[in-house]
Amino acid sequence: MATALSAYSIRLRAVIQNRPGTLGGLATAIGTAGGSLMGIEMVATDGATVTRDLVVYCPSEAHAADVEAVARRVEGIEVVEVEDRTFALHRCGKVSIEPKTVLADRDDLAMAYTPGVARVCNAIVADPHLVHRYTMKANTVAIVTDGTAVLGLGDIGPEAALPVMEGKAVLFKEFGGVDAVPVCLRVDGSDDLVETVKRLEPMFGGINLEDIAAPRCFEVEARLDEALDIPVFHDDQHGTAVVVLAALRNALRVVGKRLEDVEIVLCGAGSAGVAIVRMLLSAGAGDIVAVDRKGAIHRGLDGLDASQRWLAEHSNRSGRQGSLQQVLVGADVFIGVSAPGLLHREDLETMADAPIVFALANPVPEVLPEEAEGVVAVMATGRSDYPNQINNVLCFPGIFRGALDVGATRITENMKLAAAAAIAAAVPPGEVSATLVVPSVFHPEVASSVASRVGEAAIADGVIRLVPG
Amino acid sequence: MATALSAYSIRLRAVIQNRPGTLGGLATAIGTAGGSLMGIEMVATDGATVTRDLVVYCPSEAHAADVEAVARRVEGIEVVEVEDRTFALHRCGKVSIEPKTVLADRDDLAMAYTPGVARVCNAIVADPHLVHRYTMKANTVAIVTDGTAVLGLGDIGPEAALPVMEGKAVLFKEFGGVDAVPVCLRVDGSDDLVETVKRLEPMFGGINLEDIAAPRCFEVEARLDEALDIPVFHDDQHGTAVVVLAALRNALRVVGKRLEDVEIVLCGAGSAGVAIVRMLLSAGAGDIVAVDRKGAIHRGLDGLDASQRWLAEHSNRSGRQGSLQQVLVGADVFIGVSAPGLLHREDLETMADAPIVFALANPVPEVLPEEAEGVVAVMATGRSDYPNQINNVLCFPGIFRGALDVGATRITENMKLAAAAAIAAAVPPGEVSATLVVPSVFHPEVASSVASRVGEAAIADGVIRLVPG
Repeated sequence: MATALSAYSIRLRAVIQNRPGTLGGLATAIGTAGGSLMGIEMVATDGATVTRDLVVYCPSEAHAADVEAVARRVEGIEVVEVEDRTFALHRCGKVSIEPKTVLADRDDLAMAYTPGVARVCNAIVADPHLVHRYTMKANTVAIVTDGTAVLGLGDIGPEAALPVMEGKAVLFKEFGGVDAVPVCLRVDGSDDLVETVKRLEPMFGGINLEDIAAPRCFEVEARLDEALDIPVFHDDQHGTAVVVLAALRNALRVVGKRLEDVEIVLCGAGSAGVAIVRMLLSAGAGDIVAVDRKGAIHRGLDGLDASQRWLAEHSNRSGRQGSLQQVLVGADVFIGVSAPGLLHREDLETMADAPIVFALANPVPEVLPEEAEGVVAVMATGRSDYPNQINNVLCFPGIFRGALDVGATRITENMKLAAAAAIAAAVPPGEVSATLVVPSVFHPEVASSVASRVGEAAIADGVIRLVPG
Repeated sequence: MATALSAYSIRLRAVIQNRPGTLGGLATAIGTAGGSLMGIEMVATDGATVTRDLVVYCPSEAHAADVEAVARRVEGIEVVEVEDRTFALHRCGKVSIEPKTVLADRDDLAMAYTPGVARVCNAIVADPHLVHRYTMKANTVAIVTDGTAVLGLGDIGPEAALPVMEGKAVLFKEFGGVDAVPVCLRVDGSDDLVETVKRLEPMFGGINLEDIAAPRCFEVEARLDEALDIPVFHDDQHGTAVVVLAALRNALRVVGKRLEDVEIVLCGAGSAGVAIVRMLLSAGAGDIVAVDRKGAIHRGLDGLDASQRWLAEHSNRSGRQGSLQQVLVGADVFIGVSAPGLLHREDLETMADAPIVFALANPVPEVLPEEAEGVVAVMATGRSDYPNQINNVLCFPGIFRGALDVGATRITENMKLAAAAAIAAAVPPGEVSATLVVPSVFHPEVASSVASRVGEAAIADGVIRLVPG
């Protein structure tokens, strides 16, 4: 049976007859319907009955409905309330805007608002750099999307994308102490998207692009990076690439190979794929063969779009051709950012000794760890229920924290490399193993360590803003 | 000497020789330089010296500099740190973005982010109305400005406007529980401003327009009100008008006159002036004569802009002409939203018996209460250091609270009238007096009472969104 998850959990409030066995009967019924009873709390009692809240994790919405149905049929039980815990958590959104200053009396008001605030406005008029010191811009980034490529859901539009951007804002604050505002734009095409972000720039200290479809995302990022003097970072590309590089460095350590020597096959020529190839090449990787639906991308192909063309020119030096299965033969590393179930055990068996497999398609990877077991030396996925989760949250809070801390004007290649090095180093060398090539997303020091390395790299690259004292 | 204010306060940290009279000498020196010592805190002591923080309010920045200079010259004192408290309060901004949900473990993450969040996204795709229930849109408004008419500072641009919008966001939360995001736009002209707000609409449940120059503000508001199905409210116009109407209702009670009967002279044909005239007329006011720099506005004038034209057509029924001083003769009520010092005691003496004077120019009113004393029956200003402060904060937090609570799709005239009635009623009838025609901005129940009346009016007007259960 599939795993019961908090994502499909419900809270049942039941009035339970106060006699032995009734609660037990309910618990049994829940279990047979596929639910996992994760918590019980007493709400009230009148002697004859006890009212309890039961938290039940389920494998799916259908299972949750079954759990409710069977619970309603248990004798001696009256179900008085059923709440979907995920929807309840999302009620009225997941972020709020909070004052950092107290307004207890007129004196407070006179500093935070008129007439005191006018002094700060005038100071910014006199020296525009001061907006980075005396406003929210100092610590606030925009999480910008047009809703065209949200999670695995596709082009669902800016409204439906909002819960994801709010989740990202929560992660920014929890892990990086960065204030992040969801900015879900109803725009049509790159020009409007770029223009709108330029208009919004006054209040932001950084722009995190998110869930924007390829190839639009490449153009939007390049144009904004050129136009703005605050960091612009497309997380789906670079966040993924940074964490992949970090994980690969530790995985190579496990198998005793060097990045310069290995043969890498990357499957999926979308935004993440292109960014991973760029990142690995700038980290010193030898040859990489990129594969899309039609097979290996090489210089001899016609009809390539801009990013495929870039891949053809910068990877596959030996000009390999053929299907994913064909180019995988003898490869040391497979990195998939493509689609579920593309690979099988017999494909992995054709790889070189001690193969490394990062199957990052979400939620179902290119090959499941169960199927790869015993064949691969190191396996990573995008999922939290297997070891080695490649999760962007290891990167973006720290990279923006570091950029804001030093007043970076952009995110350079060296800053990304520094972030990858910090993430890899968060697993102490002695502890690196086949099941521990990246730290947990809850590792308490990853973000601050990424931030500090990223800040150093920004200073070394000379991309910091100097605000006069 | 001018009043010492928190807005110009400093914190002095001084190492003070531990012998009688030293601290006293410092306090005296501060006083002679115009400072007002508002607080002393001990920081440390080594026996021979005591380190203390002294909070000193000053009448101006120049006085603060004097205070520092004299303090440095006091014998037995070493000033080791001087902080401008207003700038310190603004450091890194006045608002933060905070998670409303805990992320303690993977189970929390699976509800707030993937895979749980995808369920909420899908629900919104299936029923777009649900964005009002399961996202920040339920409780979040944008405070939109282009920075063209900020406070009394003028066209200072979007960056320098940011501290004001952040202050407004603090007020929205503190007084109305409304999440408000400063949106300072670098745009040129109405078209870009309107288009940008339309693109931003997905994440907001309301639009508060702020500090946008006239006549652009009229056009922008009208076009957005037409285009969006969320409330749009230009606070400088309608917030002011609502509070003026509330104050006028109580002031008329003090002098025993009726709104229908009084002669009103309004000075200042900018955005607030036009809105006040509209509001008073829809509340049943008889005749109003609007005056601008050139004198009374009447139908016979040429070269009027759109809002002057509107005023000419809807006010001044008896076609009065002449200067402010001329039309003021015999008037019952003067309302100024214009410029400092336009009126003098002798002008007020020409008004009808028991005149009401609202001199709202900020920070210096059309006539100071000191000068009007003994002539006027009721006096109000925009300032917190005189009785009867006409402050928009009495209106905007409650009006948006009410609109969001009932899912209003716009702000109608009746909702504004209801807000004015609630503000007026917040001063109990028995307590209404010449020095108490509006409640304090810190009155604990104004916002909730405004919200509830505004919500009722929205329901009565049928402008609420029905989100399926």
